[in-house]
Amino acid sequence: MPGNSFGHLFRVTTWGESHGKALGVVVDGCPAGISLSVADIQHELDRRKPGTSVITSERKEPDEVMILSGVFEGKTTGTPISMLVWNRDVDSRPYEAMKHIARPGQADYTYQMKYGLRDYRGGGRASGRETLARVAAGAIARKILASRNIEIVGHVVEIGGIKARHVPPGEIKKNVDTNEVRCADPDAAVQMQELIKTVKREGDSVGGVVEVIVTGVPPGLGEPVFDKLDAELAKALMSIGAVKGVEIGKGFRVAGMRGSDMNDEFYIDAGRIKARTNNAGGILGGISTGEPIICRLAVKPTSSISKPQRSVDMNRMEEVELRIQGRHDPCICPRIVPVAEAMVAIVILDYMMIAMSYKML
Amino acid sequence: MPGNSFGHLFRVTTWGESHGKALGVVVDGCPAGISLSVADIQHELDRRKPGTSVITSERKEPDEVMILSGVFEGKTTGTPISMLVWNRDVDSRPYEAMKHIARPGQADYTYQMKYGLRDYRGGGRASGRETLARVAAGAIARKILASRNIEIVGHVVEIGGIKARHVPPGEIKKNVDTNEVRCADPDAAVQMQELIKTVKREGDSVGGVVEVIVTGVPPGLGEPVFDKLDAELAKALMSIGAVKGVEIGKGFRVAGMRGSDMNDEFYIDAGRIKARTNNAGGILGGISTGEPIICRLAVKPTSSISKPQRSVDMNRMEEVELRIQGRHDPCICPRIVPVAEAMVAIVILDYMMIAMSYKML
Amino acid sequence: MPGNSFGHLFRVTTWGESHGKALGVVVDGCPAGISLSVADIQHELDRRKPGTSVITSERKEPDEVMILSGVFEGKTTGTPISMLVWNRDVDSRPYEAMKHIARPGQADYTYQMKYGLRDYRGGGRASGRETLARVAAGAIARKILASRNIEIVGHVVEIGGIKARHVPPGEIKKNVDTNEVRCADPDAAVQMQELIKTVKREGDSVGGVVEVIVTGVPPGLGEPVFDKLDAELAKALMSIGAVKGVEIGKGFRVAGMRGSDMNDEFYIDAGRIKARTNNAGGILGGISTGEPIICRLAVKPTSSISKPQRSVDMNRMEEVELRIQGRHDPCICPRIVPVAEAMVAIVILDYMMIAMSYKML
Amino acid sequence: MPGNSFGHLFRVTTWGESHGKALGVVVDGCPAGISLSVADIQHELDRRKPGTSVITSERKEPDEVMILSGVFEGKTTGTPISMLVWNRDVDSRPYEAMKHIARPGQADYTYQMKYGLRDYRGGGRASGRETLARVAAGAIARKILASRNIEIVGHVVEIGGIKARHVPPGEIKKNVDTNEVRCADPDAAVQMQELIKTVKREGDSVGGVVEVIVTGVPPGLGEPVFDKLDAELAKALMSIGAVKGVEIGKGFRVAGMRGSDMNDEFYIDAGRIKARTNNAGGILGGISTGEPIICRLAVKPTSSISKPQRSVDMNRMEEVELRIQGRHDPCICPRIVPVAEAMVAIVILDYMMIAMSYKML
Repeated sequence: MPGNSFGHLFRVTTWGESHGKALGVVVDGCPAGISLSVADIQHELDRRKPGTSVITSERKEPDEVMILSGVFEGKTTGTPISMLVWNRDVDSRPYEAMKHIARPGQADYTYQMKYGLRDYRGGGRASGRETLARVAAGAIARKILASRNIEIVGHVVEIGGIKARHVPPGEIKKNVDTNEVRCADPDAAVQMQELIKTVKREGDSVGGVVEVIVTGVPPGLGEPVFDKLDAELAKALMSIGAVKGVEIGKGFRVAGMRGSDMNDEFYIDAGRIKARTNNAGGILGGISTGEPIICRLAVKPTSSISKPQRSVDMNRMEEVELRIQGRHDPCICPRIVPVAEAMVAIVILDYMMIAMSYKML
Repeated sequence: MPGNSFGHLFRVTTWGESHGKALGVVVDGCPAGISLSVADIQHELDRRKPGTSVITSERKEPDEVMILSGVFEGKTTGTPISMLVWNRDVDSRPYEAMKHIARPGQADYTYQMKYGLRDYRGGGRASGRETLARVAAGAIARKILASRNIEIVGHVVEIGGIKARHVPPGEIKKNVDTNEVRCADPDAAVQMQELIKTVKREGDSVGGVVEVIVTGVPPGLGEPVFDKLDAELAKALMSIGAVKGVEIGKGFRVAGMRGSDMNDEFYIDAGRIKARTNNAGGILGGISTGEPIICRLAVKPTSSISKPQRSVDMNRMEEVELRIQGRHDPCICPRIVPVAEAMVAIVILDYMMIAMSYKML
Repeated sequence: MPGNSFGHLFRVTTWGESHGKALGVVVDGCPAGISLSVADIQHELDRRKPGTSVITSERKEPDEVMILSGVFEGKTTGTPISMLVWNRDVDSRPYEAMKHIARPGQADYTYQMKYGLRDYRGGGRASGRETLARVAAGAIARKILASRNIEIVGHVVEIGGIKARHVPPGEIKKNVDTNEVRCADPDAAVQMQELIKTVKREGDSVGGVVEVIVTGVPPGLGEPVFDKLDAELAKALMSIGAVKGVEIGKGFRVAGMRGSDMNDEFYIDAGRIKARTNNAGGILGGISTGEPIICRLAVKPTSSISKPQRSVDMNRMEEVELRIQGRHDPCICPRIVPVAEAMVAIVILDYMMIAMSYKML
Repeated sequence: MPGNSFGHLFRVTTWGESHGKALGVVVDGCPAGISLSVADIQHELDRRKPGTSVITSERKEPDEVMILSGVFEGKTTGTPISMLVWNRDVDSRPYEAMKHIARPGQADYTYQMKYGLRDYRGGGRASGRETLARVAAGAIARKILASRNIEIVGHVVEIGGIKARHVPPGEIKKNVDTNEVRCADPDAAVQMQELIKTVKREGDSVGGVVEVIVTGVPPGLGEPVFDKLDAELAKALMSIGAVKGVEIGKGFRVAGMRGSDMNDEFYIDAGRIKARTNNAGGILGGISTGEPIICRLAVKPTSSISKPQRSVDMNRMEEVELRIQGRHDPCICPRIVPVAEAMVAIVILDYMMIAMSYKML
């Protein structure tokens, strides 16, 4: 239980620091016989990588992935798949001056308290760069799920108070990659981009909400009572750096609802049981219903801002004023989309494998 | 990974059905030498048990706990502590008529799809009655934490749109047990009670929000990157039956915030590093800061309502109208309070034990 | 990882002390829909229980099992199966006098050092009585395996230097329950029984070797590299109280062999690949070959003997002479047979479920 | 549970194939603040690497390790330590011709049955080369243990029927690296070397027994009832490729012993409880006694021999005669010594960390 692994049968172990030599992931438990190429992984990494637009960090990382094991003649062998990305565009100088400072909103202080020392360069292990390993692992899960017609689409539904209007599921996927904020509502997308640019100019940052929708999940996934599917999704999503809240289905809106509104009534459609509404977000009693699974993540504004902040030098134990240098995203929501999708993919595949295990009789 | 265990070093395994012979829990990994009596457990169970007020289920269960192992001469021995509660007031007749019906909002349909059969009486394993085992286990964790001055207080902050005003932390504990809704704001409490009674009369139910605050947690608890303290709390809380959302600190409010507002600035207070605000809810980078840990749960309206609902007979595969009989809570929030506290207690103790393990050098 | 659970998908958690109120087990992950009755469990418990012959402990325990959850209308529901056996014939008086004494060969000293206190009555948690919970859980695994034509047979192959001659596999099962030592060689069985009686008269005890054979296991079970099938079997068997060694196939005899003798040559038999010999004991590279799996356990002589022994009073920290009172088996081998079978059954079923999980594509 | 991780709090995940690009390991849970350099790891890898003497494989691998993460300014940071070794001297040609053949004693057949395909080059994942990752991880554990005066010494005690005479513990460490077979008895070492050379000339291989002794382990390590220290050691050691048996203390010799001989009597030595003998091998009831821990492994003769063998072409499903080309150790015992030490080191450190976790009160 040392913290850097996730999943039960499809199990992912990540490693690496923002300014270290490399980052990587070992994927253990991937079924054998699946076609897998570097391109499958690279495609997802490219969706996450920085330096691609004016609203993301300027760090230029090619983030080219190597597959070091577990794939033979283009197919997975069932043995661990080790993947690695070298850090190329490392500039640790801005961190030198503030290496003893507990940056507000960051993990400097807590890592220092927990471990007694830390790699302060670029946030070290606590950097958002850690998530590239999640995306690489998730790319494998997504590919397997796609072959079973399970699709995962994430999109930004709110940034800094600007909310996207409701977009029909079919359109989300089409719209989401047409703009840099990954918002399926094109009008809101424009406003969000403007807001991000404004906030960046002000040396500040802004938060938002990301939604992930999974379609095609068969009913019956989930392990009550503690390893419920929604519980595992909550953990998976809350484990992403900037996330401060997770909702399933109606989420916090249930607080204002009556049971008679909330309950999704069942009916029969072409010989199959369906739900007329999906307030539950596709999960009842911790088990998938077969309706789309809907999760939402609250993403806090990026902690690294260049506006002056008051803080503490942990070494000299004195208060200081801090202006953070470095290259940061003024709003991390767009880049969290592929990370959230990856985490959801890992959970769904893992739980499908668990569900399979009980089918022995 | 079959689902009915939680925790890593302090590990809880629960079992039992709502209308079966009994329910219980095995607590493994409890440190040896702790004074533990039936009264310690019973006190917490009594806070959760039904039949105690007009706004809870009428089922009359004494919920008297037996300790069957792991305690010798009043002290824990380090071996598994097995606890058991017999089901006494079981009336399965109302469930007979609807045994093939997928009650909306309930786990009937998903259990049937997952397992192919189910104990339909009183919701079987998916019943909220399962949570008594969590509370019994949590009582042990709470006792150990209390001896280290770590306190956990839960309270209802919203029911059906009625929101409690902010109450200073010190007053919450004092106020919360003075009313049946467990709300720390006495005025809101009165309104909430009225609403619940109204809703009950209408054969309906209502949702709300519960908050849990942990004080006295030392900095340094949490295992990045996947087993972050907030990630584990999210799983623990989302695993409770009716919960549809979990927040840490500012939660979903971060979507409208700027980094310069969100970041909690550090300062020095009597030689120790403190945070001026606690928007983070006591956790940064997945590790506790030493500030109070603040979580909120979105609790859906109870699914069992007596208002007529449309649904499906899974056996005859035809649509039916359903009026649920049985004894149910019109609002589960007050009784979720001790359950949420128990889950948080288990997580915090477990993570303290994990943190201890690294101190070997 | 607190120690009282075993298995990954078919997961067993045991609890209880020798002279406590009860002992029991929670079996989590049992597939749903399996016919299961008390009689299925009781049959195996009766094979393990004491007081049935002159060569076993005189403690008279009916060991009647209750099933408290997880079974509905005669079938497993996929939820945890909780089973309980009350302790009936408890006489703790002999233990009172030696409660501070570290009995040689027993866990008194180590439990005291680890936990700082212990339930000294009847060995507490370290008693062989703990194994009844393993047998109860194993009975479920065996029943499921039997439905797939996987059979597990254990027998005693050596006691105190008396070795059974080789008996063809088909005869072992037939012979093993015809004598009280559970030896498939009737001649050796007679000698073994005589030896045990002699040893008992001398106030001493004697060790032996137990073999377990599993037939019908399909090829392909096992999870390299650490969770190899033989590695898991070694852990499962070494975790039984008196076991000091585990062998697979030729075991320690390989030390004197050449590769050309050891290697099992493959051939084709009716279109299937078979091995001409089975020196490997049915496992290669940690994965089952389809040949019978063969394990052997070294069982130490029972530590509780009435012969005088020198030891230490841990409270007064002085040396003492000890004559152990109480009711003990002079040779535990016959009663370890069903325990070893149970552990093997749990491993095989668990690994079949794991193997199933990868078949999703 | 996909198989390539080991340990609970000190957790090791290995990856890589014999003829793939690289092999490596991620060590998660290593305490922070420990001085660690490449040299610490390299020293142990050099003890394991091939091509160093006439009795080992001729494959020339520098086995130079890179540390890619988790170490900053010469100290561990508490984050995952990723280590990598590139494969340099790869010659896969000899495997091309036999890529469909199930080599006797090897995992070809079982991998093929389990996974449906495999990397046949050099044994792929089933190669003994996998163990370098164990040794790299074990080197970290050893270093930490050494700082607490816990020492682990392995030596060869038998090869092909030639048994080393008993050597006092103090001398073992001194003698073991003076000869190529790692035998502490110099006379036996000479005979063993001669035997290995003879066997190699004959195109055959030979088995043996390796012993590992751990001194300085405090009493109290081990987690009853399933995760006993000896059970975990048995799994750790049985998971090494060629191992077919594991013993603790007297091991299989207990079968011929009486309780009065076997039981180690306690006495008081300078105010501390000690055992007069150590037949138990340092473990009672699954918990360490403080006496040296003694394990023995039965190592089968290397499966790869150049003598002709009968086997099966799995593709054409016909019987064939096989003469294995390639570079192999005629006796793997000497090179298993550092691997077995590494596995024992990982278990002991992991269990020390677990033991620490209960000390919270």
